[in-house]
Amino acid sequence: MNTTTINLDLPSLRKAYLSGEQTPARVIAHLLERAREFDHHNLWIHRATEAELAPYLERLAHSRPEDLPLYGVPFAVKDNIDVAGMDTTAACEAYRYRPERHAAVVAALVEAGAIPLGKTNLDQFATGLVGTRSPEPWGACRNSINPDFVSGGSSSGSAVAVALGLASFALGTDTAGSGRVPAAFNNLVGLKPTLGRLSVRGVVPACQSLDCVSVFARSAEQARTVLQVASAPDAEDPWQKPQPTGRRPIPHQFRVGVPADAQLTFDSEEARQLFQNNLADLQALGGEPVEIDFQPFLDAASLLYEGPWVSERYLATRPLIDQHPEALLPVTRSIISQGATPSAADAFAAQYQLRKLKALADRIWEQVDLVLTPTTPGIYTIEAVNADPVTLNSRLGIYTNFMNLLDYSAVSVPAGFLANGLPLGCTLFAPAFQDEALLALAARLHPHTVDRVGALTDALDSPPFEATEGTIDVLVCGAHLSGLPLNHQLTDRYGTLVETTETAAAYRMYLLDGGPPFRPGLIRDTEAGVALPVEIWRLPADQFGSFVDGIPAPLGIGKVELADGRWVSGFICEPIGLESARDITSLGGWRGYLASQ
Amino acid sequence: MNTTTINLDLPSLRKAYLSGEQTPARVIAHLLERAREFDHHNLWIHRATEAELAPYLERLAHSRPEDLPLYGVPFAVKDNIDVAGMDTTAACEAYRYRPERHAAVVAALVEAGAIPLGKTNLDQFATGLVGTRSPEPWGACRNSINPDFVSGGSSSGSAVAVALGLASFALGTDTAGSGRVPAAFNNLVGLKPTLGRLSVRGVVPACQSLDCVSVFARSAEQARTVLQVASAPDAEDPWQKPQPTGRRPIPHQFRVGVPADAQLTFDSEEARQLFQNNLADLQALGGEPVEIDFQPFLDAASLLYEGPWVSERYLATRPLIDQHPEALLPVTRSIISQGATPSAADAFAAQYQLRKLKALADRIWEQVDLVLTPTTPGIYTIEAVNADPVTLNSRLGIYTNFMNLLDYSAVSVPAGFLANGLPLGCTLFAPAFQDEALLALAARLHPHTVDRVGALTDALDSPPFEATEGTIDVLVCGAHLSGLPLNHQLTDRYGTLVETTETAAAYRMYLLDGGPPFRPGLIRDTEAGVALPVEIWRLPADQFGSFVDGIPAPLGIGKVELADGRWVSGFICEPIGLESARDITSLGGWRGYLASQ
Repeated sequence: MNTTTINLDLPSLRKAYLSGEQTPARVIAHLLERAREFDHHNLWIHRATEAELAPYLERLAHSRPEDLPLYGVPFAVKDNIDVAGMDTTAACEAYRYRPERHAAVVAALVEAGAIPLGKTNLDQFATGLVGTRSPEPWGACRNSINPDFVSGGSSSGSAVAVALGLASFALGTDTAGSGRVPAAFNNLVGLKPTLGRLSVRGVVPACQSLDCVSVFARSAEQARTVLQVASAPDAEDPWQKPQPTGRRPIPHQFRVGVPADAQLTFDSEEARQLFQNNLADLQALGGEPVEIDFQPFLDAASLLYEGPWVSERYLATRPLIDQHPEALLPVTRSIISQGATPSAADAFAAQYQLRKLKALADRIWEQVDLVLTPTTPGIYTIEAVNADPVTLNSRLGIYTNFMNLLDYSAVSVPAGFLANGLPLGCTLFAPAFQDEALLALAARLHPHTVDRVGALTDALDSPPFEATEGTIDVLVCGAHLSGLPLNHQLTDRYGTLVETTETAAAYRMYLLDGGPPFRPGLIRDTEAGVALPVEIWRLPADQFGSFVDGIPAPLGIGKVELADGRWVSGFICEPIGLESARDITSLGGWRGYLASQ
Repeated sequence: MNTTTINLDLPSLRKAYLSGEQTPARVIAHLLERAREFDHHNLWIHRATEAELAPYLERLAHSRPEDLPLYGVPFAVKDNIDVAGMDTTAACEAYRYRPERHAAVVAALVEAGAIPLGKTNLDQFATGLVGTRSPEPWGACRNSINPDFVSGGSSSGSAVAVALGLASFALGTDTAGSGRVPAAFNNLVGLKPTLGRLSVRGVVPACQSLDCVSVFARSAEQARTVLQVASAPDAEDPWQKPQPTGRRPIPHQFRVGVPADAQLTFDSEEARQLFQNNLADLQALGGEPVEIDFQPFLDAASLLYEGPWVSERYLATRPLIDQHPEALLPVTRSIISQGATPSAADAFAAQYQLRKLKALADRIWEQVDLVLTPTTPGIYTIEAVNADPVTLNSRLGIYTNFMNLLDYSAVSVPAGFLANGLPLGCTLFAPAFQDEALLALAARLHPHTVDRVGALTDALDSPPFEATEGTIDVLVCGAHLSGLPLNHQLTDRYGTLVETTETAAAYRMYLLDGGPPFRPGLIRDTEAGVALPVEIWRLPADQFGSFVDGIPAPLGIGKVELADGRWVSGFICEPIGLESARDITSLGGWRGYLASQ
């Protein structure tokens, strides 16, 4: 267990910078010093020198913390992501090159004030989930909590850097689980964003159609902050995708898919128990468990290494692997070289098969809002992995390999600790572009599973937040209230109730002509108005327009003031609607009127 | 030139059925009789027998025309699309099988009352753009207007059936141009819908990731009718995609991309002139030409046959081509067998290359609403194609091969006739899911280019229509009017002005407190109201919600009555907004108020 003298949580660091209590130069100096203590973990391929860091500090010296969202935030970068002026190796000496430009994600983070502290160790060419597949002089990356255990990979060093308090966050990549497994094994949040959310320009391809940049963070909220900075649009990346205009909110009372018992694999009863605890925690947070058939996901997972996608890895390392096969680790070479064999027909046939599996797997989104699985069945010692490097590696991918093939978003959240002190993770996943919604739920779950960060004694700081991106809140006060005849117009559009509250004391309610359905008109009256009970529903932004378009005169959608002073979109009424309407304000809202009938 | 005694236009046929002037049985009997006259065109692989048609007629005898959108509409089906009980051959005897189920699209059309008259000839395995690649006993399909010329392919017989007045519409497939080239060569509208719009279940795969079902129709409006019936959701097809909630409207004043002169290929000055005429017609309809760089499109096109996508064709015909290569036409075999060679690495490399080209090509959608190209450089005799079967076939794909690779929607519209009496086509294309928007523009262009249908003397009936699917119209009356300070809130969301009109004589206008921007409140007043000038803007439905959400109190969006009695979404005002507002009704609307300042 390690103690830090500087708390690296983003809000904490920001506060220290804003107050003048800390400076980036002092934080960096401290971290460089601290890093030396952990060299035996083999987490760095290149730790930045003071000279390399000077320009970043110089720039910050001319900036103000309030102007840069990541002012002075130290981060670590997996060594398959370019940082200008530092070599990129992908843990293969023969592959080494020095990039002139930052990868797009690094550029966005640096632009926001973050400081790259160095390049971290990884399973060579990001092929592996163990963290042991790095040749000398770097060697197997060791777990942050117990160096006899694997760190998880392939983004091994990035996770270990954050877990040891050497960086506030770190970038990894995640094709088959490389951003989630190391998070699980080092007691961190690991965000695998939707494919195409973050630019992959300047990232060494592993399996290019399935690669994404991932984020290791101390909390889900901090992962969100990094995601939102790092996801800056990059016109030069053909893989980046625009976000759709609407995203389904995850309701406060949500349906959580869980694989049938027989489809779950654990290495121990203890691991199973941790997972059961995670599920119970989610239930306590409003989750209704729904058993799902996990077979389509498992089938998709098996396509990744058994199918022709490994040809993408071959393509990415050619001509090196053809001309200098000895430059690769034997285990890496033996996996990647299999990619030379499949034919284009095999590749297309596998893509068709995947298409079918995705159609099948996607059907669960009609039944559940998200799925919970373990991140891995367990965790292994380096010795055990060395003894059986392929089988154990494969086993670690059971719950992660399918994710990018099926184009889902996923977050690994700390699951708690085994009796031996090692941590495991659980994974929340959902359709593409649900990154923020998953992180918001992860932020609620995290404090229930662990109380500290990484390998540190630092207390977990996981503030809850709402994922409102791509959604619009609408106030309803009449026939759209829960359980009433028009409520389906909200639920049909994936609307979810977020709040039962009151308007400001500035409204009157009238029973309008016409119906059924009978409808009230809400009228702002700052002199004789009262507070009226209302509900706030959250809709995907792309669905809100058709909801509004379906509202008949004299009603419409305008802005309504709430008791706490907020203004939200909500039902208003034209003056003409009042002409023959009856004032029902005294009945205390629409449900009061209905009860009086 | 052929005359028909029964007009097969859908509206005409419907009218005849509704009035009792015609019956499906009489129409079908007439068409079976008429079809015999055209056997030398080699358009059928199997013409339905009276016995095969009896069940369809029997069902219609128990239905009413008003209940079925395609009641008694005769259609032809390319012989790579399953019709239950009729063999599917793909123009390869050895491939023949008898399906028990209709293809999903056929089922949807039959369900709507349409009658499949038979299976049409095609280039074997849909591999070709000429229509000559069909072995004995079927043989080269001959052009409907001049049998010495090619019909175009691969959906040769389907186009010829419609052009000769033997069916109201026909289904083809379109991977590389097979639905557009035959339309062009037979003076028809050819719709290549967005990939995934129509189910491909029950369709013989050609290049499965790029295959779609296409529609040959006598007019764009009729193509739309067929599209909307045929695009019924099919839970069994993994390739079908849900339509996005919003589609960009094509403005009445639109920007039309045209390849630079040097990037256009024509077989004759006459063909070039036809294309120039088409462009001039589009300009007369409100099109502003914008020269675009066509190279990314040409580069993508060359990937289709030079790249590993041909392996999909190989995959589709395996094991037949491996075990009985003699079962295929030599030209087809030689093309498809090339698909055995590429590796999976080649396939992925080509997919990466395509991704880059698409990112490049997609940039034009910032500059233009659609692109106009010729459908082909020219048209050839069967003799010429027989003499040089590969080169001329390739040449026909210059303007069509890239379309599905880049995932665009496209419509081939008759371009007019060459001096030799043969027709050519021009193609309108736009991003995915712009099918209806393109058809609406095609409906406006078509009457300018030709005055008759197919090879017939039937006068063209191409009524204009609006493509409002996925859009919402909103009435604006104040600072959102064209040229005023908040108009950008509409244009930023791809809004387009569709109408400048007046409200019903039932509104008053008030100058609200606050500003700038200064804003009016439109108040319905059925007693003392007047007609006020307003604009109607059309927005993608998925963008409308954020527009509404941005409107401050006391304004909102409700329903406003227009002078012609329609009610549309538009600006309304809460009663409280009037308290200190000034009545400016007498100034004749917001522009009148502005002019008075």
